[in-house]
Amino acid sequence: MKNLILLFLALGCAMSSRAAIHTETVEYKQGDATLEGFLAYDDSISSKRPGVLVVHQWLGLTDYEKRRATMLAQLGYVAFCADIYGKDSRPKNVQEAGALAGKYKSDRQLLRARVNAGLDVLEKNPLVDTSRVAAIGYCFGGTTVIELARSGADLNGVVSFHGGLDSPTPADGKNIKCKVLALAGADDPFQKPDDLTAFESEMRDNKVDWQIVFYGGAVHAFTQPDPGFVNAGAKYNEKADKRSWEAMKSFFAEIFQ
Amino acid sequence: MKNLILLFLALGCAMSSRAAIHTETVEYKQGDATLEGFLAYDDSISSKRPGVLVVHQWLGLTDYEKRRATMLAQLGYVAFCADIYGKDSRPKNVQEAGALAGKYKSDRQLLRARVNAGLDVLEKNPLVDTSRVAAIGYCFGGTTVIELARSGADLNGVVSFHGGLDSPTPADGKNIKCKVLALAGADDPFQKPDDLTAFESEMRDNKVDWQIVFYGGAVHAFTQPDPGFVNAGAKYNEKADKRSWEAMKSFFAEIFQ
Repeated sequence: MKNLILLFLALGCAMSSRAAIHTETVEYKQGDATLEGFLAYDDSISSKRPGVLVVHQWLGLTDYEKRRATMLAQLGYVAFCADIYGKDSRPKNVQEAGALAGKYKSDRQLLRARVNAGLDVLEKNPLVDTSRVAAIGYCFGGTTVIELARSGADLNGVVSFHGGLDSPTPADGKNIKCKVLALAGADDPFQKPDDLTAFESEMRDNKVDWQIVFYGGAVHAFTQPDPGFVNAGAKYNEKADKRSWEAMKSFFAEIFQ
Repeated sequence: MKNLILLFLALGCAMSSRAAIHTETVEYKQGDATLEGFLAYDDSISSKRPGVLVVHQWLGLTDYEKRRATMLAQLGYVAFCADIYGKDSRPKNVQEAGALAGKYKSDRQLLRARVNAGLDVLEKNPLVDTSRVAAIGYCFGGTTVIELARSGADLNGVVSFHGGLDSPTPADGKNIKCKVLALAGADDPFQKPDDLTAFESEMRDNKVDWQIVFYGGAVHAFTQPDPGFVNAGAKYNEKADKRSWEAMKSFFAEIFQ
């Protein structure tokens, strides 16, 4: 039986690799704010499947996150990129990005409301099996998906790629119902030792199912090949990028069983 | 072409799952010492394949390591369990185990000689593709495989499962040629923070390709289901066991490409 399943899986892969990935821009609301997300799925599959929310870096929703959503769609998931900042708030430079990210990081209730609005859009998609949903995020988005977990969202898991793990309200760890996977650069200068210790305590104290991986030689933004991201503490690292993607896939294989 | 490969892989799995795993005890020498290891491979495959050395816990070579070797053989590898202590040195209780493990941990040159003797046996096996070799170890064996790397052994990678990561000679990190993956319990009381910090510095200073994974909720010996191992700081953790095995498989997929 197991072998038969493997055979069907291989045939399934053969079919899906010929399929087109459907993508579309989706406008939605949170309170009075108008947000503009991005949906991607394989339209050759008609059955319900797991859904994955993707949360953007500090520069807002860019082609980077859209590429990740497309990669997730190619893996057979419905992927939806949330827009935290709003349709009319696309930072044009790192100064604007820093100001916007800072605004949401210092207003966690608003951040939670915005990311939950994105999750709602994903879960209302008729292709999504709402019993199998996860969220991933990069940098600012890596912070945001853990905040989503802290909001008590009913998910199977969250994956934070080089995200800040700090919390102004660590007691909210008690709300976390889902599994947490943090993927971090071992040499990330933005990952403060005190924040790491506090995060570990938060997870431990609240008996969260959590894991953290440190990639040696990797600094901040290790999955981001855009040379515009390179600075003293941030640089693309191909090995850590590939390894972290594999770690996410392995995590999904477990939580979407 | 890719799809054809997937199809053949599925058919290959279907065939190999019917195959018998050949196992045998192998006597070998290191200096004057007589050692007794354990070999496992799938004898339905005739071609050369990657080899994996397995290094035992402080209790010496037991059925536990033999089971891991058999699991590795089922994955298509030639697996060989090294015997560090010697044929006539099988600890009968934890006191004897502690004394033996302590002896080798305080004589790293002897430990390196013993583990390299096991590696030699593996690499001389005609079924092993000597360009694709790794070592894994548990607890004491997890320390030993990193010591093997520090000896300058020509391997693709080592995987340490809940092993002590300390080194009396951190400068030997310069000899490490292979990739290092450490899999650790986030709550392992035997994993001293200072040892962790020193290990990270050793890896970093010597530009080793290294990674470490911490499993939340896992203490020492998290892969060991034998209730005899349970104590204040050691306990089996099924989730961390399965996740660490998957992490090893993913690492092998990368290093044995």
